[in-house]
Amino acid sequence: MSAEARLAELGLKLPEPPAAAGSYVPTVRTGDLLYCAGTICSLAGQMTHTGPVGRDQTVKTAQEAARICALNTLANIRAATGSLDAVKRIVFISGFVNAVTGFADSPAVINGASELFVQVFGEAGRHARAAIAVAGLPKDSTVEVLAVVELKS
Amino acid sequence: MSAEARLAELGLKLPEPPAAAGSYVPTVRTGDLLYCAGTICSLAGQMTHTGPVGRDQTVKTAQEAARICALNTLANIRAATGSLDAVKRIVFISGFVNAVTGFADSPAVINGASELFVQVFGEAGRHARAAIAVAGLPKDSTVEVLAVVELKS
Amino acid sequence: MSAEARLAELGLKLPEPPAAAGSYVPTVRTGDLLYCAGTICSLAGQMTHTGPVGRDQTVKTAQEAARICALNTLANIRAATGSLDAVKRIVFISGFVNAVTGFADSPAVINGASELFVQVFGEAGRHARAAIAVAGLPKDSTVEVLAVVELKS
Repeated sequence: MSAEARLAELGLKLPEPPAAAGSYVPTVRTGDLLYCAGTICSLAGQMTHTGPVGRDQTVKTAQEAARICALNTLANIRAATGSLDAVKRIVFISGFVNAVTGFADSPAVINGASELFVQVFGEAGRHARAAIAVAGLPKDSTVEVLAVVELKS
Repeated sequence: MSAEARLAELGLKLPEPPAAAGSYVPTVRTGDLLYCAGTICSLAGQMTHTGPVGRDQTVKTAQEAARICALNTLANIRAATGSLDAVKRIVFISGFVNAVTGFADSPAVINGASELFVQVFGEAGRHARAAIAVAGLPKDSTVEVLAVVELKS
Repeated sequence: MSAEARLAELGLKLPEPPAAAGSYVPTVRTGDLLYCAGTICSLAGQMTHTGPVGRDQTVKTAQEAARICALNTLANIRAATGSLDAVKRIVFISGFVNAVTGFADSPAVINGASELFVQVFGEAGRHARAAIAVAGLPKDSTVEVLAVVELKS
């Protein structure tokens, strides 16, 4: 089943591609790789989750934040390529979690993004990954997700 | 206009390539990609901006720090390739900002680097990006910038 | 001398490849690049170093933590390729250090990983790099290391 068909089956509709929060572009293609800019958890220009996990958010609410970042990344990929079916493989994601000092559960948070990629792309959605807790994110977003994607030639 | 010509027109002179602060090299080429090591805001071996934004630095001074990081990255690119005109495209930059906990304006800071790349390379300088606030950077640098660059074949 | 021969000469035995701490895979190959997931300092499922440098760990103990992360990355590379001799070049590593706010010596810590790569691969182990201090890492690991590796075609 194609990624676009799976997305429909999951009842998911991608958000509008987010506006850039600075002097950059959402994606750059080099060879067969598509480098995707960091996405934060916003929908239609409104933040959905702000503040650090361990104070303003829980692991559970932050997983939903991570899922929204991933949806925004998918929206950027489709805007760049025309269709999610252009994706050959999700190669790598970096997940940054806005969290209180010493937060040790960033993998659980970033699973919210990782699992969406697997739901949409199946085996081709399985990626290598890093999950890091940091002092702050743009617009006080709870999560930021970066992706490197391989496109079909 | 070529990147080297634009640089001259902007009245910019690149610094000496910075000395590595550890057991690594400034750039590695693989295929047409040049991976650039993180650069900090130092000139001629002296730090220009140290300490976190929100305590020791403002967004405005940190933008200048980010610009200096970008100049150091350009110096490393030229040292590796002989000329900035070897660059086909700035693909991705990761901008890390040394900042107080909860700092939410890292995109504004990293614009100091992003805008330099666009000034020097024009459309080819427009890149995907992440901006992240972190607990600490090498030598207490206020900013660190990493770049992935596509070279002409 | 081959990387596997150097490893033997150094008296090093790679650990079992670490279990993933989330919904991801240890490595993904795209073209000749192998993207390696972040590794933490654990051996046989037990954390070897936890807590931040500057409170629970010193630069010296954290260097050993970084070395263990690098050994885990090597274990993942061998599991993916069959042999470290499949490596053409270590291209880039990102080293994240769990540290107290304002920690400025992450390069010294990450040298523990960088030097291992050079010991095992010689010139081909010399990589570009970033070293960043962060608020928290998975399982409270003291260090996390990510690598991008070029494989022989």
